[in-house]
Amino acid sequence: MLRTPVVRSQALDDATGHTLFLKCENLQRAGAFKIRGALNKVASLSGAELARGVVAFSSGNHAQGVALAAKLCGTTAVICMPTDAPRLKLEATRGYGAEVVFYDRMKDDREALGRRIASETGRVLVPPYDDYLIMAGQGTTALELLEDVPALDALLTPVGGGGLMAGCSTVARALRPAIRIYGVEPDTAQDTYLSLAKGERVTIPPPPTIADGVRLTTPGALTFPVLQANLDGILLVSDDEIRAAMRALAFSARVVVEPTGAVAAAAVLSGKLPLARGARVGIVLSGGNVDPGMLVSTLAAA
Amino acid sequence: MLRTPVVRSQALDDATGHTLFLKCENLQRAGAFKIRGALNKVASLSGAELARGVVAFSSGNHAQGVALAAKLCGTTAVICMPTDAPRLKLEATRGYGAEVVFYDRMKDDREALGRRIASETGRVLVPPYDDYLIMAGQGTTALELLEDVPALDALLTPVGGGGLMAGCSTVARALRPAIRIYGVEPDTAQDTYLSLAKGERVTIPPPPTIADGVRLTTPGALTFPVLQANLDGILLVSDDEIRAAMRALAFSARVVVEPTGAVAAAAVLSGKLPLARGARVGIVLSGGNVDPGMLVSTLAAA
Repeated sequence: MLRTPVVRSQALDDATGHTLFLKCENLQRAGAFKIRGALNKVASLSGAELARGVVAFSSGNHAQGVALAAKLCGTTAVICMPTDAPRLKLEATRGYGAEVVFYDRMKDDREALGRRIASETGRVLVPPYDDYLIMAGQGTTALELLEDVPALDALLTPVGGGGLMAGCSTVARALRPAIRIYGVEPDTAQDTYLSLAKGERVTIPPPPTIADGVRLTTPGALTFPVLQANLDGILLVSDDEIRAAMRALAFSARVVVEPTGAVAAAAVLSGKLPLARGARVGIVLSGGNVDPGMLVSTLAAA
Repeated sequence: MLRTPVVRSQALDDATGHTLFLKCENLQRAGAFKIRGALNKVASLSGAELARGVVAFSSGNHAQGVALAAKLCGTTAVICMPTDAPRLKLEATRGYGAEVVFYDRMKDDREALGRRIASETGRVLVPPYDDYLIMAGQGTTALELLEDVPALDALLTPVGGGGLMAGCSTVARALRPAIRIYGVEPDTAQDTYLSLAKGERVTIPPPPTIADGVRLTTPGALTFPVLQANLDGILLVSDDEIRAAMRALAFSARVVVEPTGAVAAAAVLSGKLPLARGARVGIVLSGGNVDPGMLVSTLAAA
């Protein structure tokens, strides 16, 4: 795991009227924040559990995070991935030494598959977000950011299952009680927005957003109460605003992010942060694992 | 001025067989290392000199570096830029508060223009590289890198006028005498390569390389002896190898660099580093000020 840099951009500060601090989890090992939670979870296992190994299901960055965490802890990982997983993510997961088991996204229940492998082999299931050790690990993102930039007025992260935000908001609320904390979701993947409004977990249809890392249908059972306690609100962004943020981050801040990695920045760059000019805003760029073809087509669409 | 991050990439380590430490001056203020030398120079001026201001000539990153350094030191800057300077660089230079004076690249002698302004107005000329305070400032790049990664086996930077390398090689040779130090030049801008071979400064025709930051015809009078004393050699790369390095850095290391910023990485990625596998290699990514259209066309050409 790396202590990731906080990147600045005068051009984006000028464009938004705020002072932005970009926490670059796109530059993290395995290209996303996921290694933080996975490593915290796997490192907590007993010797007997490590001898049996771990199992996880993911089509995305959690797969690589768990595979790398298992390697770093000297244990083995089985990762359940969809048959249509991107080749780069499949190769990266295998590159960290994990065994990949495929499932059909249209027919199979990946959670049931993961649990069956866990019960049959004794491997410990490493969930993607609904686990306090996972949340705590993801929270080290905000811990580092607030160590580097103590006087933040606001903190924004993308919200999918809620693990990153549960950890980050817990840290930020504890260290800086008056900080404004906003989760950001695509406007078609607004399950947490709706759930917070209703005061209970709402389930939406599978959302079509390009931000595949937050393509969730309901908040986590354990993460949701943490978000309820800590958040000042959820901001919603369109896919076009996410693409524009990817371009601004590449052209002005000179960092490459995947669509999900641009979600939180998109809220500020599109003028949706409900704060007066001059705020000191921490923004988590959550990941950078974008297919080259998609990156090029997105950057070219300006 | 920022302390810039050192970025890692497992994919690039795997591809090269070395362990790479990417010193990200593309994430520096004004998008390049140039602010380091400019700030060291301008901050050294007397009160009387600061009251008269500074002048510089540059079509590139030195213009923005001097403009920002002047602003940070509370003085004024006149920057001589060619009439065909990229609009983005012109706007950035003016954005830092500098006055821009234009010259015709085909007809005017920009050095004579700069010196005339200096003598007529009393402004202090801030040269792009041939000045010990400029070299010392650029050398803080290597100082930070060796503080963060003390046990480097090799250090590579691009070489244009030689200011960056003069400073960095002096620091590296002092802190770590056995380190291997290689400058990297485009194979059409090999003036320092030829000069080192001949033992004296050689002048070449204006080189056509895409790496506009190292499009020099001869090494500096003051920088060249420093390079002679410190370097283990110059490595040469083609424009295609520079473009391939820009793609590798964007797709694998997730950072955006301008062509000159990819020059040193191109030498390692194309297999030209004359060291056995497993070396710990520091690579300076010197800048990130690339036009969006050129970035997109370069990334799309894979």
